[in-house]
This record gives sequence, structure tokens and C-alpha cells, in this order.
Amino acid sequence: MMSVMGNPTNIFWHESTVGKTERQNLINQQGCVVWITGLSGSGKSTLACSLNRELHSRGKLSYVLDGDNVRHGLNKNLGFSSEDRTENIRRVGEVAKLFADAGLICIASLISPYRKDRDACRAMLTDANFIEAILLFCVFMNMSLEVCERRDPKGLYKLARAGKIKGFTGIDDPYEPPLNCEIMIEEKDGVCPTPCDMAGQVVSYLDENGFLHA
Amino acid sequence: MMSVMGNPTNIFWHESTVGKTERQNLINQQGCVVWITGLSGSGKSTLACSLNRELHSRGKLSYVLDGDNVRHGLNKNLGFSSEDRTENIRRVGEVAKLFADAGLICIASLISPYRKDRDACRAMLTDANFIEAILLFCVFMNMSLEVCERRDPKGLYKLARAGKIKGFTGIDDPYEPPLNCEIMIEEKDGVCPTPCDMAGQVVSYLDENGFLHA
Repeated sequence: MMSVMGNPTNIFWHESTVGKTERQNLINQQGCVVWITGLSGSGKSTLACSLNRELHSRGKLSYVLDGDNVRHGLNKNLGFSSEDRTENIRRVGEVAKLFADAGLICIASLISPYRKDRDACRAMLTDANFIEAILLFCVFMNMSLEVCERRDPKGLYKLARAGKIKGFTGIDDPYEPPLNCEIMIEEKDGVCPTPCDMAGQVVSYLDENGFLHA
Repeated sequence: MMSVMGNPTNIFWHESTVGKTERQNLINQQGCVVWITGLSGSGKSTLACSLNRELHSRGKLSYVLDGDNVRHGLNKNLGFSSEDRTENIRRVGEVAKLFADAGLICIASLISPYRKDRDACRAMLTDANFIEAILLFCVFMNMSLEVCERRDPKGLYKLARAGKIKGFTGIDDPYEPPLNCEIMIEEKDGVCPTPCDMAGQVVSYLDENGFLHA
């Protein structure tokens, strides 16, 4: 099937003969995006790895799109200007959407500091034709700057404080916390959750919402 | 694990705890890219759909990246200048690489007229550490311009001949046929192969090269 869509007018939309439902039935899961946002050092990559491992152990096919890794490939022609950060997030959102459409549980791990950029990705992954057909779940790593800076796993806060990195999120560039997120990871009684605890929280959410079965 | 790589120096590479091999074992196949190149009307999308269907019927997880479709999403900020065409192909190559790494058989269907752009994608999907670790297979739709123009499924050749589309591949922009391709689809005794025949040719190749099992 073929239909003309939008501009430019010489681009057609090709309907694939194998649809998302068929792919999902094949691997017995539902494609979606787990979008992990938070400050540098808040544990995004740790959660992404742990979640990926936990899903795999349950026989689910997931894939991590890590903000840093993507900047070595797809987004290697982007810098850190406000415009480039927005384009960085947009591209990852578009790729995550393709992975979800392919039937995978896509784990996107990016600082994604600006609300408007995250909201654009959420809109991209919401099917206006269906109630509650939101396929992007936001996980907010709600760790204080103090905790993240104390961890400083890459030594970047130190560089930012010394003025050797400009526009560093949390130091001289804002992080806008989500106003609504599906899952929040935070300290409890002054203790940070373990990687397994964090992954468990997300897996429970996915399971309760039916994404671990076709 | 974490290691510092290339420039910019503030980007780190995160090793995922679940690797390609584990994903491949889970779904019993090997991730790779089938790159279909050829003129508009040469049957790229037809082959992509048919191949996708055939692989699905064998229980294999594949996904079509269609050049036209991607221009509605990831590449919607690109036009048709030589520079933008190159960036269009580069981004599709990078995404195809992610899909292959995820363990899927990714079917990329794009005119991809320039040899240098296709070669760049092939290089991207070749692991220099391993002999014969090429994960991109080029399928050349070797149909004459005459055949493609007679089909003209989107009416684009007509517009190009009337001067209403500029820089149209095959008319006033070159198509550089592959010098080496893994699979060639062509007329036999003046008869074009059926979608099933074409898909069968590619599936045989994938099977013989071990990609339909982990």
C-alpha cells in the first residue's frame, strides 16, 4: 500500500506487510521506550545496564541507547549548543521510536535536561488514535546535585567547577526535573537504591502495564 | 566498564552488561544489515516487504528501514542536496548498525545512488578485528532505467522528465551501480523475478552464511 504524506511531496509512505503486532507476537513482548533522565552521576547508565540484564534474564529483548555512545555514531556531528542538544534528543527519540516499533524494549539513557525536548519525545511516542497509547515511560533519577557531585564517576563535576567545562548540566546549565514521570528513583531514608532495586522498580511497572507479554 | 574515547573528551563509552551475542542467543539469529540499492521503481520496497514477510514466517525478527519513511522522522530535517543525501545515508547506516547490534536482521531500502555513501556504510558495519566480519550485505536491484521508468509506480519519472523534479536519480542525477555486491537481482530471459523469488535469493544467502541461527 502506498499513500502520499506531508511535504516534501515526493516521499511516499510504504506500509510494511509485517506489522508491529506480528513482531510482538513473535517475541512475546510489547515494544516501548524507557526514557531515563537525570543529572550526570545520578545512576542512569547503572540503571540502564541493570534493567537490560534483568529483562534479558526474563527472556525479553531490550536494547540500550546511551546518550554518550550515540554521540560516537549517529550524533557525532552534534555539539553541545542548545540547538544541538535538542537535535541530539530528537534523533535519539526517533531511533527509540523505531526500536519500539520493531518490538523491542528500548532503554534510552540521556541527561535530557530540558523539559521541552523530553516532552517532544513523549509526543512522538504517543499514538493520538488510542487512549493511553503512550509508549514512552519516563524514569526520573531524582538524586540531589550533592550526591551526584560526590560520586562524580567521570570527574566531570570537578572540571566544571574548575571552569574547564562550560554549560555543564547542574552547574552552569539548568536541569528541569520532570513535572510528570511514570517512575521516580530516589533515596529512601538517606540510602540510594541498589542497581537491582532500581531495575526491579522499572520491571514491575512494565509487567503491571502488560509490556512483558504480547 | 568505562573508557575514555576520541573527541570530545567528555564523552565516555559505557559497556552494556548484555552483549550482542547474548541477544542473538535469545532470538536465535545473527544481527546484520541487508542493504537494498537501486533506481526508483526497481523493486526495492517490494523486496524489502517480501523479505521481511519471509523472515517472519521463519520466526526471525527483522525490521525495514525504508528511505522514504525515515525522511518523515529521523531525517525530516534533510533535503536532497548532495550533502543532505550523504547525511541521509549516513544516519540510516548508523541506525542500521544499532539494529544489527540489537540482534535484528535490518533491511535498509534506499536508492543510495552514490558509491562513496554506500561504501561508508559498509565500512561502518565491518569489524576490523575479525576476518570476514562484514555485517552489511548489498543487494543491487539491477533493473534498467527503461524498466523502472515504464513501471513508474509513484509517477516520479514523469515529473522528472517534465522538469518538475530536479536532480532525480537516473534522469539528471547519476546512479553509480555497485562494483561489488553480495546479491544481484535482475531480469532473466527478459522476465523480472517475483517478490518471492527475490526474497528467496536473499534468504538463501543469509542462511548459507549462518545468519538465521545464533
